[in-house]
Parts: sequence; C-alpha cells; structure tokens
Amino acid sequence: MTDEQKLTAAGNEMSASFLAAKKRSDETLAKLESNPSSFTMLTGDRPTGRLHLGHYFGSIRERVAMQERGVNTNIIIADYQVITDRDTTEHIQDNVLNLVLDYMAAGIDPNKTMMFTHSAVPAENQLLLPFLSLVTEAELHRNPTVKSEMEASGHALTGLLLTYPVHQACDILFCKANVVPIGKDNLPHVEITRTIARRFNERYAKKNPVFPEPAAILSDAPEIPGLDGRKMSKSYGNSIMLGATAEETAKLIKKSPTDSERRITFGPIARPQVSALLTTAGLVTGRDPKEIAEEIGDAGAGALKQYVIKSVNEFLAPHRERRAELAKDMDSIRDILHDGNKRANAIAEETLDQVREAMGMKY
Amino acid sequence: MTDEQKLTAAGNEMSASFLAAKKRSDETLAKLESNPSSFTMLTGDRPTGRLHLGHYFGSIRERVAMQERGVNTNIIIADYQVITDRDTTEHIQDNVLNLVLDYMAAGIDPNKTMMFTHSAVPAENQLLLPFLSLVTEAELHRNPTVKSEMEASGHALTGLLLTYPVHQACDILFCKANVVPIGKDNLPHVEITRTIARRFNERYAKKNPVFPEPAAILSDAPEIPGLDGRKMSKSYGNSIMLGATAEETAKLIKKSPTDSERRITFGPIARPQVSALLTTAGLVTGRDPKEIAEEIGDAGAGALKQYVIKSVNEFLAPHRERRAELAKDMDSIRDILHDGNKRANAIAEETLDQVREAMGMKY
Repeated sequence: MTDEQKLTAAGNEMSASFLAAKKRSDETLAKLESNPSSFTMLTGDRPTGRLHLGHYFGSIRERVAMQERGVNTNIIIADYQVITDRDTTEHIQDNVLNLVLDYMAAGIDPNKTMMFTHSAVPAENQLLLPFLSLVTEAELHRNPTVKSEMEASGHALTGLLLTYPVHQACDILFCKANVVPIGKDNLPHVEITRTIARRFNERYAKKNPVFPEPAAILSDAPEIPGLDGRKMSKSYGNSIMLGATAEETAKLIKKSPTDSERRITFGPIARPQVSALLTTAGLVTGRDPKEIAEEIGDAGAGALKQYVIKSVNEFLAPHRERRAELAKDMDSIRDILHDGNKRANAIAEETLDQVREAMGMKY
Repeated sequence: MTDEQKLTAAGNEMSASFLAAKKRSDETLAKLESNPSSFTMLTGDRPTGRLHLGHYFGSIRERVAMQERGVNTNIIIADYQVITDRDTTEHIQDNVLNLVLDYMAAGIDPNKTMMFTHSAVPAENQLLLPFLSLVTEAELHRNPTVKSEMEASGHALTGLLLTYPVHQACDILFCKANVVPIGKDNLPHVEITRTIARRFNERYAKKNPVFPEPAAILSDAPEIPGLDGRKMSKSYGNSIMLGATAEETAKLIKKSPTDSERRITFGPIARPQVSALLTTAGLVTGRDPKEIAEEIGDAGAGALKQYVIKSVNEFLAPHRERRAELAKDMDSIRDILHDGNKRANAIAEETLDQVREAMGMKY
C-alpha cells in the first residue's frame, strides 16, 4: 500500500469503527431505558481545576439523569491522570474536594453514586499489570487521543500518558462497568477497553468470563463554546465556573469580547462571540438562541450581556446555594469520599481476586 | 553527529556508566560488610520453571550469605513478569511453590528473609502509576534488556514488557531497598530505578526524600555453562535442577555430549562440552577444574561423567533432603508465602501512604 492508500484505509477503518460504536451506543441507550438496573456506568474527571458550565451540560447533567433512572453509577476522580502531562500535583486536594462539592450540588447522591479517587484504590491499579500484557506497544501508539494530548501538553510523552488508555480500562473494568458515556474523542479508550476485556476472557477465563465488554454511549450534548467563542479552557479564562459567585460571573460575562455590529443575530460561524453568549443563554433558559437574539435585536451587546448574566445567575443560584451549604461541613464531604473509596476498594479487591483466580495466581 | 559518532558516544556513555556502577558496587560491598544491618536488599526470580545449579551459584548462594550477614533481605517471586513475553500462566502455582521450596532448602530463612509474590501486593503495584509519570517513552525504549528480551521472545512488544523496568523500580523501592545484587545485563534496570527515585524526591519530596537511590551490586559469580557448553536454558535441557533426583541427574549428565578426544583437558574455548562438565564439577567440589582434568587424564569422558555425577549428587544431597522434608508439608510452605505477602503488603501500604502524602493526594 502507498502512504495515501494506508491513510484512506485507516480513515475507512476509523469511520467504520465510529459507525459501529454509534450503532452500539443507540442500542445500549434503548436497553438502558428499558432496564436501567442491569447497567453499571463509570465516568469521571481529572481534578485539574473547577467544573464549569461546559462540564455541567456536557456530562454532569447526564450522570445525574442516569443515577435517577436507577443505573448503577460510579464517578472516578482521576487524580493520577493529572500527572500524565504535568510535573506537579499543586492544589490537587482542593480540586478533588471541590469536585465532590460540585457533583453533589448538581444532584449526585452519594447513596446512589459511588465517588472515589483513583489513587485510593490499589487493587484497581494492580489490574494495570495483567492488562498491559494484553496490548502491544504498537496498539498503545495508535491511540489518537494520546498523541493529541501529548502534543497539547508540549511535554515529552511520559510512560504514564502512553499507558493511560490502559488505566482507563482498569477504571472501567474493575467495577465491571458495561456502559461508559463519552465524547467522540474518547472512543479509542473504550475500544481498547473492549479489546482488553475480550483478550483477558479469551486467554484466562473462557468458561467464566470475568469482564464485560463495555459499550460507549456517545454524548449528543451540544458543545458549549467559551464566552469568547473559542473552546472553553481554563487558560483562556472564558468559562463560567459552577462555583463562582454571581458577581464574579457578571464580571466575567461583562468583559467578554463581542463585535462591532449593534444588532444581535445568531450565527456561530460569522459571529462566534455574540453567538457564544446566545448559546449560553439558550442552554440555561432552555430557549432557542435565535429567539433570544430576535428579542434583544437592536438593544445591542450590552443588553445581551445583561440577559446572559441574569439567566446564568438564575440558573446557577440553586446549585450555588446547595454548594455553599455543603461547603460549611467539609468533614462530611471528606467522609463521603472516604466511604466511596472504601466501597471502591471492596469492589476492586473482589475483581482482583477473580483475576488472580482466572490466571492461576492463587498460592 | 554522524551515526557512527553517535554510536561511539553511546558506547562511551555506556561504559562510563558501567564503570561508575562497578565503582559504586565495590564501595557498597565494603560498606555492607562493615554495617550489614543498614542495608536492605531486594532480588527475585520469575516463576517460569525450576531453579538449577546456575541459579544456585549465580545468585541464591549470595542471597543466603547476605541474609546470614544480617542484611535486611527480600525476595520477590515476580509472577507478573511471566506474562511480559508469553500468553499463558500455565503451571505458575506449581512453579511459585517450588521456588519457595528451593529457596528454603538452599538456606533462605523466612524469619530473616521476606519472600512474597508480585501479584499479592496491590499497594506496591500502584507505585507504577506515579513512577510511569517520571520516565519518558524514549527512556523506556532505550533499555537494551527490554529490546533483547523482546527479540528473544519472538513476540510483539507488549505494554508490560515495555514498562517492566518501571515494575522493577516498584519492586525495589516499595521496600526501600538500597542494594540490588544483579548481573551486568540488569544494570539498566537499576539505573532507571535510581532515576525514578531521584526524580520523585526532587519533584515531590525535596525536604524529606521518600526513596533511597539503590546501588547495584554487580555479581562476580562465574557464569556456569549448561552441560553441553551452551548457555543454561530450559529449552536446551542442559541444566541440572536443584530439585531433580540423583537418578535424573545421572541420566542427564550421562547423555551430555563430549568430543572425540580421549584425554580430558580444560579449555572452554577449544573444548566447550568437556570444559562445561569440568566447570560444574569444580564448582560443586570447590576444586580447580584443571586439577580435576589432570586427575582424570586418559580415563576419558566416561570417567569424567562418573566424577561429575558423583560430585554433583553429593553436593545436592543435603539440599534435596531438606527439600523433600519441606515438601511433605506444603501447607506450611503456603503459610510462609502468605506471611511474606502480608508483611510485604504492610510495608507497601506504608510506602504508598508516604507517596500520597508527598504528592498531596490525601483527602
């Protein structure tokens, strides 16, 4: 094959695998709706900062819905993932506890959802060793997400970043999650998890498979742009934090850039900044951004910003109230995390025991 | 630099690093002799088969000597290393228990030396995650032992084999071993362990270093050839197993190839097969192989083999007697392993706790 043919072949393979995943995702969602309690979900976040509106509409809201449907829901706070591409764990304690605050303020119920930190579950992490034996270096390298994260970090590729799809397989499989809600970018991680589960079962547990092959649920949540129309990013300062005060939020929205045209219209390509404000207002009010644009019309960007400030702060007010209330008793927040860690350890030890049994490593 | 200059530079760097390691090794041995109790040693074996005379003279004898000197000695049975380059864990339970039998028959005292299996110590294995963040993929690739083991296995490079020098760093550092007896081939593993210890301390524990930088003790034990003069290898069937019977040993030695010259002389290059027999007899009797050769002289290969059979079986008789005695009570052997695993877990959990503390991952 020429390089071009290889690329085309790779592209076809990719889109075929995407279509297969999308089909599986739709089928899974249908099954999940009819029989939620037969599903175990794992998802999580890296504790690198505070959660913002993008997280809320992109994933947190969906997690709460799954929890309420009766799915067995699990959230990992992936603290070791922080050091895949940086040299410091600065503020990690603060970030972790604030994640728990935001989860709970958003409706995650620790009695229904297990929240835990990656670094607290040694038996889960041990799965990395047998799992690493089931993938080749070439397969690790083929992961496009690892490559793009490495490039974005500006760092040399660490052993931890190279192997991180396998850590995610451990996260997913230790609790035998059979459903993983993800964005399209993370599809390769779920694919490698399916491969690892299948190879483990084939090699060591033909009669009694130890692991499910989890299905990805591809999120169809809208991508929320940052206030300036660019991708939401901490380094751009363009994200509305769930835990910010109403004043901080107002200040941030006020200083967001717009364009020189007075009349407000919706058009993400032609007018990314104004449209980002409209999209944000649309999401928090449940209205159509075009309708909001028409309503504001010639009143201009100042009026639009006032509307965004008001609607965002109204939307976030109950979250912030719950958050402030919860933050008064940080000991309880720590207890909830300790309890989640304890439960995760019990589950991980049971799974690891099955793995040892299947591999004949019981002495 | 041209490729040639690069190779020369790499060669110089390698030999400079070997000389530095040899110097450190000699200094460490001197310190160890004057103050053994300030040293913690870790070493171990892959449970892929039975131990043979090569293992005994190459490492087991030295471990017993260190134990008796009062060094804090630890032996890991590296069961996960079995799957770095093969797809099966067949016979692993049997291999592990037989390792413990041979260790103890050879003089390893479970009250003085901690024996444990890799797969039984989750907190040790968790260290893999922070440690993998401290090395780059390029550094993992540069390891010559990984490359040669991969080539020897005829397998694609697995994620487990690629990262295995980092697992060894976990093995060494979880119990804060500061001395590791090795053959020259394993020097790169100790070097990467030193790098990981140094980087961890620099990055997370400047004030209170968590890990020692272990020194390699380069073994000067003679390399014992297999009975046919080639490298000892299970697949060549040329090794004298410590646990074989006297009859099996006699049979193996009888069928070992010699050459057509009747007169027995010692010369490993010119007469590798006859010399391998002489070397073996020399080691087990403590005599000079040349002297044995002269003694046998014109009596020929048959007489030489009779001498080797007699001296090897005499040497191994006490080992085999102790081994048979121990094998009568396999429950006790299992208890000893369980006890070692329990101690290893307690140590690993303490170290992991210090690692979490240093990294701020206490919530």
